[in-house]
Amino acid sequence: MDTKLKIRFDYNNMMARSIGKEEGFKDKELISCYPLALKAFEEVQKNRGKGMTAWMELPYNQGEIVEDILLTAQQIRAKFNYFVVLGIGGSALGPMAAGQALTHLRYNELRRSKRKGPKFYVEDNIDPERMKALLDVIDVKKAMFNVITKSGATSETMAQLLIIYDLLKKELGDEAKEHIIATTDREKGNLIKIAKREGFKAYYIPDGVGGRFSELCPVGLLPAAVLGIDIKQMLQGAADMDELCRRQEVDKNPALMAALLSYLCMKKGKNISVMMPYADSLKYIADWYCQLWGESLGKSVDNEVNVGQTPVKALGVTDQHSQIQLYTEGPYDKVVTFITVGKYRARVPIARGFEDIPDVSFLGGYTLNELIQAERVATEYALSKAGRLNNTILLPKVNAYTIGQLMYFFEMQTAYCGAMLNINAYNQPGVEEGKKATYALLGRKGYEDKKRELDARPSKKRKYII
Amino acid sequence: MDTKLKIRFDYNNMMARSIGKEEGFKDKELISCYPLALKAFEEVQKNRGKGMTAWMELPYNQGEIVEDILLTAQQIRAKFNYFVVLGIGGSALGPMAAGQALTHLRYNELRRSKRKGPKFYVEDNIDPERMKALLDVIDVKKAMFNVITKSGATSETMAQLLIIYDLLKKELGDEAKEHIIATTDREKGNLIKIAKREGFKAYYIPDGVGGRFSELCPVGLLPAAVLGIDIKQMLQGAADMDELCRRQEVDKNPALMAALLSYLCMKKGKNISVMMPYADSLKYIADWYCQLWGESLGKSVDNEVNVGQTPVKALGVTDQHSQIQLYTEGPYDKVVTFITVGKYRARVPIARGFEDIPDVSFLGGYTLNELIQAERVATEYALSKAGRLNNTILLPKVNAYTIGQLMYFFEMQTAYCGAMLNINAYNQPGVEEGKKATYALLGRKGYEDKKRELDARPSKKRKYII
Repeated sequence: MDTKLKIRFDYNNMMARSIGKEEGFKDKELISCYPLALKAFEEVQKNRGKGMTAWMELPYNQGEIVEDILLTAQQIRAKFNYFVVLGIGGSALGPMAAGQALTHLRYNELRRSKRKGPKFYVEDNIDPERMKALLDVIDVKKAMFNVITKSGATSETMAQLLIIYDLLKKELGDEAKEHIIATTDREKGNLIKIAKREGFKAYYIPDGVGGRFSELCPVGLLPAAVLGIDIKQMLQGAADMDELCRRQEVDKNPALMAALLSYLCMKKGKNISVMMPYADSLKYIADWYCQLWGESLGKSVDNEVNVGQTPVKALGVTDQHSQIQLYTEGPYDKVVTFITVGKYRARVPIARGFEDIPDVSFLGGYTLNELIQAERVATEYALSKAGRLNNTILLPKVNAYTIGQLMYFFEMQTAYCGAMLNINAYNQPGVEEGKKATYALLGRKGYEDKKRELDARPSKKRKYII
Repeated sequence: MDTKLKIRFDYNNMMARSIGKEEGFKDKELISCYPLALKAFEEVQKNRGKGMTAWMELPYNQGEIVEDILLTAQQIRAKFNYFVVLGIGGSALGPMAAGQALTHLRYNELRRSKRKGPKFYVEDNIDPERMKALLDVIDVKKAMFNVITKSGATSETMAQLLIIYDLLKKELGDEAKEHIIATTDREKGNLIKIAKREGFKAYYIPDGVGGRFSELCPVGLLPAAVLGIDIKQMLQGAADMDELCRRQEVDKNPALMAALLSYLCMKKGKNISVMMPYADSLKYIADWYCQLWGESLGKSVDNEVNVGQTPVKALGVTDQHSQIQLYTEGPYDKVVTFITVGKYRARVPIARGFEDIPDVSFLGGYTLNELIQAERVATEYALSKAGRLNNTILLPKVNAYTIGQLMYFFEMQTAYCGAMLNINAYNQPGVEEGKKATYALLGRKGYEDKKRELDARPSKKRKYII
């Protein structure tokens, strides 16, 4: 492990010592729960790599795949002007998170010579205005589309594929297939069938890797590589974080401690988890986290207990002007996780000026770097002073290695917390009803009963409407 | 009122009749609270336009200003390649929301001839990487900067001004001042002093219009006009919504009914308000709402009661794959507000194909428009079936007129709800501590005691860190 680049989990402000005994944890209380944490630890580690935890082995078992991806990415970077991910949920959030974190913040606006690769789009919605807007600004003849869905049954993604493939065939005839790469299951599902028949290049999502745990498999690695991101370093970061997360001592294991604190917070009714990076580059990491945390832990247990924190994304310092009033004075129902950056990749001095106006001139001579750090510390301080639970993840720098660590950390935290809650963190039974209803509304065969149910719903007779 | 373009508030799925008596409201229960709602109504309407509710009159009292803005905007559109808002909080969220809703979804990527105006940026953070990224892609010599802060004491915005003005002076000398427009208080504060002395054009934020209620004053109107948005129609929409929100019957007054329902939900412990538009164009309306709702209602009352729902932004259908699992099966702690669009501004057919794979081919022949609507209805149905409180705001179309209605609706809902909660919806005392701490950390004169307090905080001795 590169210790200078090790990310750290700081939970001082979860403790009574920092934020007061009303809300904070006492040492004794925490230590008394270590057995519970260790039980979860053993359960997760005992089963690692099995069933739906195959994602835990991704840092180690992709040597060949990585070489293939790097070669393909190199070709795409040379040949295409646009790289478009067609995917939704985990198939979109990971690629967006890594792309935002590890490329220029206005990557698409840079000249080609600075970008050195294609423009990058992730189309994770089916809003017709959005599809039209994309087609207004790209030339499909110069675009590579990466269709990502494990089952090939994701309606949104497959609808996009139908639209795009039709367009490509009209423009390019037989060459159309050279513009699509499928990332999907190796054997099961529709997309692999289509890919084989049409001759799309395909990458495989390993068995036991669900959408929200898929960033470190080809789902995330190919888009990242196309953006010139060092995917080996991402995987190395994940591997090194894994080492920390395999430690058997709770207070030496960052993901296990973070999971335990989350678990205890949920038990105390803190049902909101705010993820607040102080860096625009980490904005979509917060989005990615929101899916991971929300879908994995938001579960009904035996149709009786309903668990799960609602994840909320915020951005420092921006949302200090939008949410901190609420976090400081509103209900004691949340935990804030700050993500802080030790050293930003740019340094911007604030020019001196307006010396007769002290409210303004005191800023001159500092850098934006100093200002953003001061505001972060001040916000942490103010929340803590108000007795509000908060913790901090520190990234010494934002790079492929630390992002690999960070994502793996959150995944392990989620796995451990799921085990503590005694739930299946890897399914999403709650979305089935909506899927079936969509099929019914679109008149799909076999969903006639559901359609009748929908037609009979009370709110169909809209009464309460102004 | 253009009734065909009237937005509607549908609360069928807040009622027991739709979602079951466990969670839903019964008619009787709701009606028994009408007196409470009417009391809030009277309080708000009695004071309308006074004190911090001057925003209520914005639809009516800006005739001259609007003409001036339109003229200025026309000149900016002709002369500049970039229009950059420097602002944070309400000074940024309104302009972003209107811009995203009412221009092409990839406006900045269109050719100039299609855009017909400058590229548009809203810089609402002080991340040094973000400032550098902006300066990498714009040419300040061809840029107009709109600095927005009422007091001129907003550190983030004033730091940006110092940086940009210094740069402009280096590049353009005396002409620099022609590249800055200040939007600020007419008399008080630092920015008006600076504007007068340096010779910046200035627009005024009227007394009694706070940041989060400022979109319909020059804060929002100038950026919107520069983007070619019909600001008169926005104001007309607000005026027409105001008419509905002045109705004395609770069940005829959309904002009053929405406020009452929110209030009752809070009383029942529903402490999360999810805002979920089914349109990429409305994505930043959700962000804007989050500030409005969070900062206005997240309050401590007499240091004893802590109120306020945490607003959460979600995007349909995208976040069906990220959050709906949690919303369906997690704790009964939230209310979901869908925003739906009757008619999108584009129509995208889904091509037929893969006829031998029914999982995919059933989509062919539909449009994305039909698919997104079916998914929205299905999601509403699935949530309702699971007994989850939800309501819907319907926009017949997204245009300046309906967006004006929508924003004014949310503002009035917030005002009424604040009155029901008996709180001041217009202050933000909770952020003062953080501001003072920032000043202390930056060594500003007069904050020496605060600095000592910061140095003595327990978490300075970081102990709990992994």
